[in-house]
Amino acid sequence: MLAEIKGLNEECGVFAVWGHKDAAQITYYGLHSLQHRGQEGAGIVVTDGENLTAHKGLGLVNEVFASKDFETLYGKAAIGHVRYATAGGGGIANVQPLLFRSQTSSLAIAHNGNLVNANQLKHQLESMGSIFQSTSDTEVLAHLIKRSTYPRLEDKMMNSLTMIKGAYAFVVLTEDKLMVALDPNGLRPLSLGKLGDAYVVASETCAFDVVGAKFEREVKPGEIIVIDDEGIRSEVFAQSSGRAICSMEYIYFARPDSNVDEINVHKARKNLGKQLALQAPIEADVVTGVPDSSISAAIGYAEQTGIPYELGLIKNRYVGRTFIQPSQELREQGVKMKLSAVRGVVEGKRVVMIDDSIVRGTTSRRIVRMLREAGATEVHVRISSPPITNPCFYGIDTSTKEELIASSHSIEEMREMMGADSLEFLSVEGMLEGIGRSNEDTNCGQCVACFTGSYPTEIYPHTMHPHDKC
Amino acid sequence: MLAEIKGLNEECGVFAVWGHKDAAQITYYGLHSLQHRGQEGAGIVVTDGENLTAHKGLGLVNEVFASKDFETLYGKAAIGHVRYATAGGGGIANVQPLLFRSQTSSLAIAHNGNLVNANQLKHQLESMGSIFQSTSDTEVLAHLIKRSTYPRLEDKMMNSLTMIKGAYAFVVLTEDKLMVALDPNGLRPLSLGKLGDAYVVASETCAFDVVGAKFEREVKPGEIIVIDDEGIRSEVFAQSSGRAICSMEYIYFARPDSNVDEINVHKARKNLGKQLALQAPIEADVVTGVPDSSISAAIGYAEQTGIPYELGLIKNRYVGRTFIQPSQELREQGVKMKLSAVRGVVEGKRVVMIDDSIVRGTTSRRIVRMLREAGATEVHVRISSPPITNPCFYGIDTSTKEELIASSHSIEEMREMMGADSLEFLSVEGMLEGIGRSNEDTNCGQCVACFTGSYPTEIYPHTMHPHDKC
Amino acid sequence: MLAEIKGLNEECGVFAVWGHKDAAQITYYGLHSLQHRGQEGAGIVVTDGENLTAHKGLGLVNEVFASKDFETLYGKAAIGHVRYATAGGGGIANVQPLLFRSQTSSLAIAHNGNLVNANQLKHQLESMGSIFQSTSDTEVLAHLIKRSTYPRLEDKMMNSLTMIKGAYAFVVLTEDKLMVALDPNGLRPLSLGKLGDAYVVASETCAFDVVGAKFEREVKPGEIIVIDDEGIRSEVFAQSSGRAICSMEYIYFARPDSNVDEINVHKARKNLGKQLALQAPIEADVVTGVPDSSISAAIGYAEQTGIPYELGLIKNRYVGRTFIQPSQELREQGVKMKLSAVRGVVEGKRVVMIDDSIVRGTTSRRIVRMLREAGATEVHVRISSPPITNPCFYGIDTSTKEELIASSHSIEEMREMMGADSLEFLSVEGMLEGIGRSNEDTNCGQCVACFTGSYPTEIYPHTMHPHDKC
Amino acid sequence: MLAEIKGLNEECGVFAVWGHKDAAQITYYGLHSLQHRGQEGAGIVVTDGENLTAHKGLGLVNEVFASKDFETLYGKAAIGHVRYATAGGGGIANVQPLLFRSQTSSLAIAHNGNLVNANQLKHQLESMGSIFQSTSDTEVLAHLIKRSTYPRLEDKMMNSLTMIKGAYAFVVLTEDKLMVALDPNGLRPLSLGKLGDAYVVASETCAFDVVGAKFEREVKPGEIIVIDDEGIRSEVFAQSSGRAICSMEYIYFARPDSNVDEINVHKARKNLGKQLALQAPIEADVVTGVPDSSISAAIGYAEQTGIPYELGLIKNRYVGRTFIQPSQELREQGVKMKLSAVRGVVEGKRVVMIDDSIVRGTTSRRIVRMLREAGATEVHVRISSPPITNPCFYGIDTSTKEELIASSHSIEEMREMMGADSLEFLSVEGMLEGIGRSNEDTNCGQCVACFTGSYPTEIYPHTMHPHDKC
Repeated sequence: MLAEIKGLNEECGVFAVWGHKDAAQITYYGLHSLQHRGQEGAGIVVTDGENLTAHKGLGLVNEVFASKDFETLYGKAAIGHVRYATAGGGGIANVQPLLFRSQTSSLAIAHNGNLVNANQLKHQLESMGSIFQSTSDTEVLAHLIKRSTYPRLEDKMMNSLTMIKGAYAFVVLTEDKLMVALDPNGLRPLSLGKLGDAYVVASETCAFDVVGAKFEREVKPGEIIVIDDEGIRSEVFAQSSGRAICSMEYIYFARPDSNVDEINVHKARKNLGKQLALQAPIEADVVTGVPDSSISAAIGYAEQTGIPYELGLIKNRYVGRTFIQPSQELREQGVKMKLSAVRGVVEGKRVVMIDDSIVRGTTSRRIVRMLREAGATEVHVRISSPPITNPCFYGIDTSTKEELIASSHSIEEMREMMGADSLEFLSVEGMLEGIGRSNEDTNCGQCVACFTGSYPTEIYPHTMHPHDKC
Repeated sequence: MLAEIKGLNEECGVFAVWGHKDAAQITYYGLHSLQHRGQEGAGIVVTDGENLTAHKGLGLVNEVFASKDFETLYGKAAIGHVRYATAGGGGIANVQPLLFRSQTSSLAIAHNGNLVNANQLKHQLESMGSIFQSTSDTEVLAHLIKRSTYPRLEDKMMNSLTMIKGAYAFVVLTEDKLMVALDPNGLRPLSLGKLGDAYVVASETCAFDVVGAKFEREVKPGEIIVIDDEGIRSEVFAQSSGRAICSMEYIYFARPDSNVDEINVHKARKNLGKQLALQAPIEADVVTGVPDSSISAAIGYAEQTGIPYELGLIKNRYVGRTFIQPSQELREQGVKMKLSAVRGVVEGKRVVMIDDSIVRGTTSRRIVRMLREAGATEVHVRISSPPITNPCFYGIDTSTKEELIASSHSIEEMREMMGADSLEFLSVEGMLEGIGRSNEDTNCGQCVACFTGSYPTEIYPHTMHPHDKC
Repeated sequence: MLAEIKGLNEECGVFAVWGHKDAAQITYYGLHSLQHRGQEGAGIVVTDGENLTAHKGLGLVNEVFASKDFETLYGKAAIGHVRYATAGGGGIANVQPLLFRSQTSSLAIAHNGNLVNANQLKHQLESMGSIFQSTSDTEVLAHLIKRSTYPRLEDKMMNSLTMIKGAYAFVVLTEDKLMVALDPNGLRPLSLGKLGDAYVVASETCAFDVVGAKFEREVKPGEIIVIDDEGIRSEVFAQSSGRAICSMEYIYFARPDSNVDEINVHKARKNLGKQLALQAPIEADVVTGVPDSSISAAIGYAEQTGIPYELGLIKNRYVGRTFIQPSQELREQGVKMKLSAVRGVVEGKRVVMIDDSIVRGTTSRRIVRMLREAGATEVHVRISSPPITNPCFYGIDTSTKEELIASSHSIEEMREMMGADSLEFLSVEGMLEGIGRSNEDTNCGQCVACFTGSYPTEIYPHTMHPHDKC
Repeated sequence: MLAEIKGLNEECGVFAVWGHKDAAQITYYGLHSLQHRGQEGAGIVVTDGENLTAHKGLGLVNEVFASKDFETLYGKAAIGHVRYATAGGGGIANVQPLLFRSQTSSLAIAHNGNLVNANQLKHQLESMGSIFQSTSDTEVLAHLIKRSTYPRLEDKMMNSLTMIKGAYAFVVLTEDKLMVALDPNGLRPLSLGKLGDAYVVASETCAFDVVGAKFEREVKPGEIIVIDDEGIRSEVFAQSSGRAICSMEYIYFARPDSNVDEINVHKARKNLGKQLALQAPIEADVVTGVPDSSISAAIGYAEQTGIPYELGLIKNRYVGRTFIQPSQELREQGVKMKLSAVRGVVEGKRVVMIDDSIVRGTTSRRIVRMLREAGATEVHVRISSPPITNPCFYGIDTSTKEELIASSHSIEEMREMMGADSLEFLSVEGMLEGIGRSNEDTNCGQCVACFTGSYPTEIYPHTMHPHDKC
């Protein structure tokens, strides 16, 4: 059974809106702009004040929803979720928002993050008679709320959050209330905006731009925001020990047009590229970035060094889920799909190839070879983040420690494996400088656990267990 | 009936392979890399030396084909086609390759281009008793071949081509022969490559890179190439009056990693951007390009002017066919999907926005407004091609003359409609210089009809009829 | 919420097998033969001794299952369920078997019947912190078992059954045990058979014939049978107050080739027809039955009276779920689908039309008119069961009392509404005589509540609430 | 190629309506009632006076059509077709009506029957330059019409029919005309009816009952009926040498509620059963028929002999196309699906099993064994038609001569193979007597070729070729 009850709430995206007559559609467009945060499944739950109505499914947002679905998704408030593709999966039962109905009320929950004590809590709850319907750690919150003896829902919620540890951005909807909560370390991003008189909440601000909303402020670590017909209220359910927002959001996860904790992601990445140029310059003819997430850093590196920026690598936009992978034999004959090196650009050139990060190193090796086959005379790999040496337990899928190549290899060993002429990483300091948070907190308020092994929360034996997907 | 028999072979992509044991798979990967040339439908016909087997369908290549389909697509040679999305459609019957079976032999045809005398030929053929199964102009070739009295198939083919006028790159497959032909003006691109001992043919060279093939040479205007178990032979079926390859392939249609008639598309576009910078400089803080096709020109413009290149506009990668468009009301509230302006990049900045071309002008107006709403203080629009003032009859979908804004408006009028602070186009000369063909032919061997109205072939009254898509 | 938590386990079918290497396939064929008991959804859960694996879906058995599904449905024991189509539905979440996983064990339940105190139990369980995942009353059993403090699973099960009231035939599967239980009144049918060394359990014996199994005996009212690797054991969990098997199983629900409590259904129906002939003879030319369920009674009526039996009414076999119903206008023009009167048979004839029962009377009126339009000179309606005057709370969908025409109309009124020349029902005594159970129990061991209003169990206020389907 | 161009228009059903505002829906309901004549595919073509619109697909009528399809199927006249399931198939391209568009007009054709000189005509047409789009023999008619030089369409049609040999009931639709034609032998059934002012045509009269139409008359052998805005006209295009309607329509193919050439099918079958009782009586306890087609004959046999008629065999209504067949191993363990013997009826009884015909004999053997396993002490097989000793070339799928068991075995040999206690067939005379056509024509106007080898038309060498389905 163990395989089914772990490794669940990876990187995902949440959205919520209160007080808009087209709440479900607004959520649809919002989720759409968060699609890069999760492609396995999507769902929306809407309330008309009396009933919660749900629609969810496996696949992309525009595969899950058709026009007619919105005929029944009627109401003034909604929450939505896009779910990251995981190996073990769990299928439709794990697609969020999770919806819990009882004879007296209903509750829908969407979650971005990962709880580090979910297994421990599940054991306790099951021993008291609870039955879980999904393998998602998110469901723990519903059971804790159900069993809380406080009379007010927001107190039940706050009471429950005190028992939960890890990373979470929660949006919770009932017939007549929207509740939003961020973990005390603020590990995951979560912003509040306004759309006319309506309130919107999203994992990234790009969702605000898409629906025409105005950014108001960040949700604070340890804060719960409650919105209902009475208005909006904020309470602190846990004193924050200082923010520790995930560095990977800046490095590769968030969309370049989003601001994460008020810093533009494209700008941050361009600055990471500039820092990298300062720390690891090289003589070359062409700078190119691995699309899409390394483009900004490549532009920064080129601007800083004066080496021209070119489209040396092209990503095929049409490689979808159902794409048929070439057989080993065809692959050896040179069939390659997702990425192409542009011979007309790199032939006879010394190329600087910018990538945002290295996990297992296999992709980098493939790209280096591709560039050489297209005629590059030298390939210098520059990584716009530090080596990843430790697994993430907060929702980013960075494999087990064993699979992280940088945890067991020197930079020179990695360079050799990749077949690069040179390989350099950005330092942790360079990264913090590049992102440029002026924050007084430790590590400028960022979580750098995957680079340093210093985790901002406790981690438990069961959490530590290696698993296919973190 | 008229609505159904016109406007058919818009911009599409063809691929062929002869002499490879995985001919159908190779074609699949080749078509995949040509997906940008047509998303309405796709098909493959394969021969095992004795029978032709076909699989085709509406949708993207990876929607049309599943792994199991290749169990029956067995053989040593194949042709494939991706079809451009048209309004009237015609549905599955028009998806190519078209396959014609008789009691004695079979014939499959795939076509990129548009025949300008198809209607005239259809009338004649029908009056002689022929029955057409599709509304595609491509089918005309099959009927001409069927009725040709020459004994050898290649002579039937050449005989038929002498009756056809317009733009065409044909790949034709029988049980034991592959025939490839390009129109006497070479209006459409078509390249020949080798994959080990096998021959491959493709609309763009990016398909060669993807399947691991080596570029051999361009197919020549007026040339037919026949490949069978005897080997490869080339014949000239029509003396070319000089090449006139479509300029739009360089400007926006082809993939940046393709070489079109031996010139790299990204480089050509970057040079168009540089030419544009020379002809129409401006003082500004940021250069940005409309993704994806204007990125290269923007990089060139930035490099030439020294103004930093930034990601000021982001395209949502997940807006698929089934995406639900916002209602008018939601659109007015600011909901926008395909493209977002990056506030963090353009706020408080003077922006140069590079676009590759202007057809109706409505998209440009929307983007200008989007940039202003995101805080740009000035928006200067620069177009990396000349004004399009005339319709295309050779397969590019540039609407009727009435719908081409530049055919009836001055540049100042267009600027005002767009709400731009300034608007400049590249000149025809600048374009030819930027693409940089050293060719002695008229217009450096390029078709510039859509900019000048001077068509390289005859155009007939029926061809002239306005239609939704051509 | 009320609408969602009532009216759930209507007439359905269950099947189970223990000790056969193709347990899932055997269950598939068994469910197939029980398809008439439920067409909304179907499911199978199989155990390989260590894990439960489930597959279920909406639709017919052969729509829900494909060959490849059985590759993962591997194991030695399985349970399956077909679900009756209900208005409110509940969708996939209510399709059985319901599967409950915890960190220590799993439990799958399939149920035929309806619990009369499910709402009361749900209220209690929710107030203790339980969260329900479906609107099915079946889920109550899982929560009761989960909370039972007995150490042995079969004791938890028996303990839970003592709290449940109503009609139920349960099959319950864990990793290593199959449990089968029938309510103390034996309201629903349930038989035990052997297939080689394996045990099989089914709602109807036709499932045994289909899988090649041999009937062993009926499961007894109040009996629980436990089968595991130790063998088979039977215990009595409740003293039966006498059997009260549903009369409708004989009258119209079960398949004619099944034996229900050891009486063949075709024979029983034929005898009902003979009894009807004795009680309500008429002079006529032709006897015809409403297909399919009244055919046997019509044959009996014909045999007893000597009037020839003919196919006067034909059912269209192809009217499936997706069939498009004629508009009101087309209906008035005479378009009719499911049933046709055979003009060649009834024209100019006095027709006896045998139907098995009358619920709302609207179908009968339509058939009478159809027969007249086809030329019948007289139509005499004979019903092979007594008038239904009371709703069923045990799983048969007989509407609310208000909708039962016989609850508020005299036979003469009904005759007039139908437009029949005469109308007669079988008496309760005639029915009991016709079915021919020699049993000493009240009403020969049959439930006759829908005819008499005398229910064999308590009925509670909430159970009494009218609902669309019961 | 041969495999694809033979064996095409097996038994199918056609329907047409002229002059009804809901022409397409009417056709839908009509096709529905003809579903038993073909389950592989279905299609409708409708005209609004200016354009033909088509919708067709593989599968049952209610799988092919959805409500929304009728939004575009708008017009006053329509034709439709249901297609018999064939092995080789040909797929969607062969689904009828076939639709042929040209620049001046369109033509849709639906066909029930089989042309015996289709291959010869195809060869000729292809040598003149025609290209065929399907492997259907029906397409020959379109090409003949296209090439006919008569000015009036009906003359083109009549001219073409003079070149065609074999069995055919054609319905042909253009923008403004409906044409109906029956072959000179009237091998296939075709009736004309009226629905208010509208005309309807159908393969069987059951379609008239379903749409509320009134039977007018049979279409005559060699007759063409033309219906347009001018009204209805009949012409004779070939002098009939006497009707030879297919006997199999009465014996097993048509629906029991249809009248075929004015004789009710159920009555005819019941009389076949009575004749059989007179020719081959036996002492027994029970008469049962193989459902569905032998039920009427069984009722007749029972009535004549006085032995009670019982439901000794039950057909599972839910065995659809996607049903998973039991493996050989499971089959040997006794798993059986489509048909069940009713133990409660046949146990300990001497059973007369009535079947309508014997083709390969394998089904009969299986049923005999099933009855014995269910406890029958004797099984006497009685066949309500003569032995089939010759293949059909007119559209009924009776395999090749080699596969017809009666072509090479004596009755005693067949009895032994089946394991029956006795076996008797009806004589040809008994069959003609039973069906009861008072017609003066040879064989009472029936085709008896499959029983006697005397074919009513020429048969050609190519027609004679054995093929999987004919």
